Amino acid sequence: MGSLGGSLLSSLYAETQGFEKGSLGLGLLSRLYAETRDFLCKCIWNVVIFGPKPKHVAVIMDGNRRFARKHHLKEVDGHKIVLLSLMSTLTCCYEMGVKYVTICAFSIDNFKRRSDEVQFLMDLLYEKIENILKEESIVNRYGIRVTFLGNLEPNIREAAERAMNATAKNDNVVLSICVAYSSTNEITRAAQGACTERFKIRLGSNLTSGAIMENVHKRDGENNVIKVSDLERHMFTAGCPEPDLLIRTSGETRLSNYLLWQSSHCYLHISNALWPEFALRHMLWAVLKYQRVKPYLEKKNKKMV
Amino acid sequence: MGSLGGSLLSSLYAETQGFEKGSLGLGLLSRLYAETRDFLCKCIWNVVIFGPKPKHVAVIMDGNRRFARKHHLKEVDGHKIVLLSLMSTLTCCYEMGVKYVTICAFSIDNFKRRSDEVQFLMDLLYEKIENILKEESIVNRYGIRVTFLGNLEPNIREAAERAMNATAKNDNVVLSICVAYSSTNEITRAAQGACTERFKIRLGSNLTSGAIMENVHKRDGENNVIKVSDLERHMFTAGCPEPDLLIRTSGETRLSNYLLWQSSHCYLHISNALWPEFALRHMLWAVLKYQRVKPYLEKKNKKMV
Repeated sequence: MGSLGGSLLSSLYAETQGFEKGSLGLGLLSRLYAETRDFLCKCIWNVVIFGPKPKHVAVIMDGNRRFARKHHLKEVDGHKIVLLSLMSTLTCCYEMGVKYVTICAFSIDNFKRRSDEVQFLMDLLYEKIENILKEESIVNRYGIRVTFLGNLEPNIREAAERAMNATAKNDNVVLSICVAYSSTNEITRAAQGACTERFKIRLGSNLTSGAIMENVHKRDGENNVIKVSDLERHMFTAGCPEPDLLIRTSGETRLSNYLLWQSSHCYLHISNALWPEFALRHMLWAVLKYQRVKPYLEKKNKKMV
Repeated sequence: MGSLGGSLLSSLYAETQGFEKGSLGLGLLSRLYAETRDFLCKCIWNVVIFGPKPKHVAVIMDGNRRFARKHHLKEVDGHKIVLLSLMSTLTCCYEMGVKYVTICAFSIDNFKRRSDEVQFLMDLLYEKIENILKEESIVNRYGIRVTFLGNLEPNIREAAERAMNATAKNDNVVLSICVAYSSTNEITRAAQGACTERFKIRLGSNLTSGAIMENVHKRDGENNVIKVSDLERHMFTAGCPEPDLLIRTSGETRLSNYLLWQSSHCYLHISNALWPEFALRHMLWAVLKYQRVKPYLEKKNKKMV
């Protein structure tokens, strides 16, 4: 990946600069500021690249509507411009060798928004999934395997499955997209899965109803008690390591029902940037801060094993 | 509670000042600084008291050992001096009319520390629980009902139950103390509880083994599916509202397996103070910041109902 680094990063700088200058109307006078910032950004990159990298980065993408209001755009336009930040984050992760990236895009709670906004978001998601399937998409260019986490609606599920199948052989980065997701829903679903498994073990043994009940009350029985690993096996994120770094944008210090089970020991980084403003420099800053606390986290985690 | 406010707060100022000047060796020269700080603290109190108050405040008490190292004390002494911060927090909550206070004192993971430290902590906890039972304790003075959350060891459980019974009639504040607690353990235990309940419903109906299995596969059946409310009923925190404000001390931005299920939408405040340094001013600052975001959080939560 190192050889690709320079060109990919340069194009990313160009993209973000073009976006910021063009779309948001920053003039030529701010060029000096932008160039200084990018120089610093490159310096941080050179520091970050030699430090320990997170294996799994999760991002709660928050602040699209606030960004739209701030720049007098329609709320739906706030959602449209999320892609540049996502590209920047994915590129950065790819360049650093991060293996898993999880993005929290659209929670179950978001479905309680206005129906036209929900419909717009679903259409946008459908369009983006279709883009993934194109040969020259960033997903295929970077060798990204795409998975979806959540209770997907039928039409989105069908498109999502096509995208998952089409990218199943990619193995550079695993990109998990949370759609119609909430942690309480995921945990409850996992409890249901583990419970059904218990039912099957119990009933498969052809015991009488009385004998089954007796076993139910013997909570110490190896086959009877639901264990942490049983729940983990039924989570949407089964098979994926826990995030090392969880980034939440727009300065909100809440997890908003995202990845609660998975983030008990990960480093939570709160970025004040709204998601569409979340650029490479914010990402690098988050990784730099993660690298600073990593030895301490590792020491803590070792004690727990 | 208002009438008590002045005297309690004054004694608390005196306590914290005495502690800081005496134990930590601050001299007379720092008096001006301390008095200015306390004056500002009183000003913030007068602002905070007129704003909306959180109903439930949870605190992850972190940094005792780091405090001990910082002040060249033995590690166990770091744990001994947690009480002053706890008193300050409890007094502040009591004065503000906060109904529920949850403190995360000792997680299951802490049991993996050195055995002498674990033994010391258990002895200290036992001693503190015994203190609760004394007539003139702060718990009885403020009318605090004490509950314990977690998988308590037999000797601690017996003492804890005595303390819970002795304070069962107090109704000003509910103080929940997490001991031998972890969220993954709580959730797994709740899944087990909900699953056993499903077993009982199914087997109580005297169905044949085949009919039971058929029902197990019909996941839509009303009695068959574990719901969020089923898990909630089996959590340690059942019956207690979710925290509005969760404070974590020592600048750590992790939940460390505490209250994951309960904190999906609450305001998370990270304080840089180590727990033994966490004074009234830190608590007031946290509440002030909560008050600032409360209207936004309420708007968000309304949309989710």
